[in-house]
Amino acid sequence: MTNHQTAPTQYVEANGIRFAYRRFGKAGDAPLIFNMHFMGTMDHWDPAVTDGFAKEREVILFDNAGVSRSSGDVPDSFAGMGANAIAFVKALRLKQVDVLGFSIGGLVAQEITLQAPHLVRRLVLVGTGPRSGDSMDTGTPEGNQIFGATYEHPDDLWLRVHFTPSEVSQAAGRKFLKRFRLRTKDRDPEVNEKAALAQRTAIAKWGAKREHAWDYLKDIKQPTLVVNGSNDVIIYTINSYILEQNLPNAQLIIYPDSAHGSLYQYPELFVRHVSVFLSAADPWTA
Amino acid sequence: MTNHQTAPTQYVEANGIRFAYRRFGKAGDAPLIFNMHFMGTMDHWDPAVTDGFAKEREVILFDNAGVSRSSGDVPDSFAGMGANAIAFVKALRLKQVDVLGFSIGGLVAQEITLQAPHLVRRLVLVGTGPRSGDSMDTGTPEGNQIFGATYEHPDDLWLRVHFTPSEVSQAAGRKFLKRFRLRTKDRDPEVNEKAALAQRTAIAKWGAKREHAWDYLKDIKQPTLVVNGSNDVIIYTINSYILEQNLPNAQLIIYPDSAHGSLYQYPELFVRHVSVFLSAADPWTA
Repeated sequence: MTNHQTAPTQYVEANGIRFAYRRFGKAGDAPLIFNMHFMGTMDHWDPAVTDGFAKEREVILFDNAGVSRSSGDVPDSFAGMGANAIAFVKALRLKQVDVLGFSIGGLVAQEITLQAPHLVRRLVLVGTGPRSGDSMDTGTPEGNQIFGATYEHPDDLWLRVHFTPSEVSQAAGRKFLKRFRLRTKDRDPEVNEKAALAQRTAIAKWGAKREHAWDYLKDIKQPTLVVNGSNDVIIYTINSYILEQNLPNAQLIIYPDSAHGSLYQYPELFVRHVSVFLSAADPWTA
Repeated sequence: MTNHQTAPTQYVEANGIRFAYRRFGKAGDAPLIFNMHFMGTMDHWDPAVTDGFAKEREVILFDNAGVSRSSGDVPDSFAGMGANAIAFVKALRLKQVDVLGFSIGGLVAQEITLQAPHLVRRLVLVGTGPRSGDSMDTGTPEGNQIFGATYEHPDDLWLRVHFTPSEVSQAAGRKFLKRFRLRTKDRDPEVNEKAALAQRTAIAKWGAKREHAWDYLKDIKQPTLVVNGSNDVIIYTINSYILEQNLPNAQLIIYPDSAHGSLYQYPELFVRHVSVFLSAADPWTA
């Protein structure tokens, strides 16, 4: 059985796009599809998370259209990215999947669920928010400062994005960065400027203020687990609370002294909580 | 081994009070001390919760001073109730305990932790809030209506307090009420009017608006798990979010379509989540 480090990058065609993906773990009913954050590739996932899940279920990482090794362009809307993700899942001939989305991957995950409800069994939304969420149109001041700064080493960006300034959180961040370098061969090239710009355009549209902005969440009837860190300054933590309060069937978990990358700070606990949610016949019965 | 139904009511003296209590479950390092809600006795706990915990740890239920079979008066402050609870725990010669508080029991639990930090290993706060929490001075309009109404059967009060109006939640409520009647012998007498009045006085003081009201939470350094239902109208759900955001070392879990009594609606999931939190050497590592 392959794992995060050894799973070969494979390709599948759909919608005129050649999607790069990796698939590993214990085969079962509904694989767990991972949707990545802004400027992220398959190699930005934490092996402690992906391999943690892979012991009990099949895990599928992919680059959405226009990201890293996948062909095509990044659409300038999350509706477009969701449609591409659905095409990818259908190209793998999967009838039903569990969907995990992190940060803007959580926006794609919401769009997948809205556009193809029968394809999605359960939903996990991490470090993300609703349409017209708090400071999601312009980005937060902290986030704009963090993404606008220059760094001696690129890793320093991710330490600030995903972890709080506390010693404990930063130490967890350094451990994460080691894990995330464990795969040495067949790594994804970084996302290019054009792709990042399209993602930014889509974020501004998603975040734009609207009347009755959160009503659409009533249409996401899947059992949903919303997760965030206590101090997410990229997509404010209150947006996770708003998601939980407006989704008809959602549970919220917030972790202490943690930021946007709470799943990378507490990988074992995150995998355990999500596994309790995904594994039970009734998601609200342990 | 005894359980929720069969554990005999015992007594211990401290502070001039004769405390009624029940103790059962698997003996270990830190027993879990249960602090009850407004007008509640030992018999208001859900056996699915208490016996769920008892499989892995020792559980101690008690009536605080002036409540049901315990002698003395209910103090008119939570500081006073906390001091009495500490006297009770010390009278049992326990060096360290885990403390669970539900509703106003969560206010007592906070006071125990503030007054005797070395006595408390970990803290579980369910359906509760901080000093000067949202609508905690006057009570919520919904809560005042629910507690002020008259009911054909007393159980109808608890169905409205602890569960949402949804069919699913009400059905869970009726199951809870059956479980809560399973103990037929040696049940606690109901709380009297004088005790309820003192509890109300204490609630008004706790809830009163203050400057820097939430600063005191920084002194609760114990790992804390905050839990609530998505739609608590007795102590608004946002108060659980405020607790998590202001406690230095806290995790939040909010359950879907549930109210004040989320632990009675999802007893298995609640026991599982709290057990993950209490059992790990590091509470944030599964």
